[in-house]
Amino acid sequence: MTAPLTGYTILDLTHVLAGPFCTMTLADLGADVIKVEQPGGGDDTRAFPPFKDGKSAYFAAINHGKKSIALDLKDDEDRLVFERLLANADVIVENYRPGVLDRLGYGWEILHEAYPHLVYGAVSGFGHTGPDAKRPAYDMVVQARGGVMSITGEKDRDPVRVGASIGDIVAGMFLAQGILAALLDRTRTGRGRKIDVSMLDSQLAILEHAIALTSVTGKAPGPSGARHPSITPFETFHASDGLFVIAAGNDRLFEKLCIALNLPLAGDPRFATNPARCENARLLKRLIEAVTLDNTRAFWIEKLKAAGIPTGPIQSVDQVFKDPQIVARNMLVDVLDRNGRAAYKAAGNPIKMTDMPDPTTRAPAPDLDGNRGEILRWLDEG
Amino acid sequence: MTAPLTGYTILDLTHVLAGPFCTMTLADLGADVIKVEQPGGGDDTRAFPPFKDGKSAYFAAINHGKKSIALDLKDDEDRLVFERLLANADVIVENYRPGVLDRLGYGWEILHEAYPHLVYGAVSGFGHTGPDAKRPAYDMVVQARGGVMSITGEKDRDPVRVGASIGDIVAGMFLAQGILAALLDRTRTGRGRKIDVSMLDSQLAILEHAIALTSVTGKAPGPSGARHPSITPFETFHASDGLFVIAAGNDRLFEKLCIALNLPLAGDPRFATNPARCENARLLKRLIEAVTLDNTRAFWIEKLKAAGIPTGPIQSVDQVFKDPQIVARNMLVDVLDRNGRAAYKAAGNPIKMTDMPDPTTRAPAPDLDGNRGEILRWLDEG
Repeated sequence: MTAPLTGYTILDLTHVLAGPFCTMTLADLGADVIKVEQPGGGDDTRAFPPFKDGKSAYFAAINHGKKSIALDLKDDEDRLVFERLLANADVIVENYRPGVLDRLGYGWEILHEAYPHLVYGAVSGFGHTGPDAKRPAYDMVVQARGGVMSITGEKDRDPVRVGASIGDIVAGMFLAQGILAALLDRTRTGRGRKIDVSMLDSQLAILEHAIALTSVTGKAPGPSGARHPSITPFETFHASDGLFVIAAGNDRLFEKLCIALNLPLAGDPRFATNPARCENARLLKRLIEAVTLDNTRAFWIEKLKAAGIPTGPIQSVDQVFKDPQIVARNMLVDVLDRNGRAAYKAAGNPIKMTDMPDPTTRAPAPDLDGNRGEILRWLDEG
Repeated sequence: MTAPLTGYTILDLTHVLAGPFCTMTLADLGADVIKVEQPGGGDDTRAFPPFKDGKSAYFAAINHGKKSIALDLKDDEDRLVFERLLANADVIVENYRPGVLDRLGYGWEILHEAYPHLVYGAVSGFGHTGPDAKRPAYDMVVQARGGVMSITGEKDRDPVRVGASIGDIVAGMFLAQGILAALLDRTRTGRGRKIDVSMLDSQLAILEHAIALTSVTGKAPGPSGARHPSITPFETFHASDGLFVIAAGNDRLFEKLCIALNLPLAGDPRFATNPARCENARLLKRLIEAVTLDNTRAFWIEKLKAAGIPTGPIQSVDQVFKDPQIVARNMLVDVLDRNGRAAYKAAGNPIKMTDMPDPTTRAPAPDLDGNRGEILRWLDEG
């Protein structure tokens, strides 16, 4: 059992979410991640609520298993340590605003010249090129500007934010993918590359259906509440005790659904094809709910499951924690504290792989500068 | 200029979105992707609206630049072709329900024995293990069951779906990351691995803040409309002509914001820290809107931009298409038709990389079985 990235070292100059999420996923695949933090406070999220035993549970959830060294990149002695790290690392990752590392003398061109093997991964609000390159961004700014908010929410009401910080996270994921592609390429060329991922670009990259629609019709879609904009029935329905989801993505599933609900609609031309069902979606929803309101969510989910129809509950996060499938897949792990006690929860590794350990715990998130001695010893040995 | 995955061949047995999105991002990094489709209809999304010139713009947006061969994996002759493809490919990707390939005699153990170099990537609704492994899922089922819907929407109203299909897309992205890690590992071991990604797991993996909160407080968060649940001000505000976003993520930005809006709040203890601002978020929103309602969105965005405060518009998808930053980053590309004419739009590659071409067009999406001759010739040469 060996994790695939065993032996790779990532120098992690990132903070808050997009960068740290990227390096967390690489750590989960076996890479050694060394956080290089500003002396004083370090990563902003060390001060983010909620706290437990005086430490940020948020920081722990994203930074478990990483090591930390505090370096002032304007201090000559610390710069020497940093440069020894650069010589020994495979990857440097940063999410500063474009230009910050250049001003410190560690821009891509200089690093590539001095450490040609080094892969350089950058994630920023708007990318390292274009008119807005130097502007700051946060998750919500790119969710709004990138179009996702305009298709999320209820019709005729104000748009809403996606509750998960996909502005940061999706960008961090694209960066991880770029870094791995560059490392793979390096096995042939011996040379690193720079990867430049923008949070705004990454929002556009996930719009899929909305891009096709806008490009063909010339008209941008709006929000469609809890239903899919072009598949019916594919939305939430009321049972006697609340909402649940039915997603009958094709004609065959719709026929099965009609049989399971004892609804004599299969031959009705108003519902014979998906375009027809989309046209008559409101009527269809009422006809289905006239049936589903008579019994509980649990009843209908079991019944439709048995019939092979995609269905399920809308779960709150505490319910997700107890979901038997989530538990069986080891998707909620314990982050240990320095005393080896389970102290925080974090998401498990969604990338399950043969011959890769899938532990139920994670090493502690580091204290600021908490691994200085160990890191310096590693450099001395290297 | 060489794309990092040049020379890698992906055998793509996927359909609809999670799998095809994964292989699209690998194609954008230079891999050759061969779609192996069912004779007859092929990938379901060939029949998905919207259409242009009789072809699905949706299919084109996700499958550009791939090749297609139609093979019936129950037919002996076609199985021989498939096995020659397996011997020559680096990766096989599939998003069937668990067990389908096993029944065809192409399960992981058999493939790994016969083609030890082959990396096997699978994405499914619930993964290849656990009590729900064999159940079907669609995007909306996992958005609902995985917790994202429970934190998306307005307080005291029904939850809404994230407008982009992140149930599929995020899973496809984790699969791409796993495949690349396995290919990197293979350069040392010569052996492939199986990657098993579940759409439900992937939803949990992006919950970040909600996991920390639920684990520390024991209470799951609900939806919080258009504001961040634990940073203030970080939400939408009304200007005279509509909504825009201000994301002042820390005290320094809040001070700058007060100066830019000429709001004398900087010394006010009700707004001195982020916890205090969260406590008084509604009051703060009114005080800010008392100022912002006096002028247009464009006015405030310019003013706050100049002051270095993260801000921006809420853009519809047609507006995103014209965004100067999106245009400068080549994030909207033209998919060509067989006559070489720009026919459809697709998202550009969000992974910008040195020495990698970033073309403004994409080769056509393949017709079903449209590359049979070319693929058979490649096998004969190989």
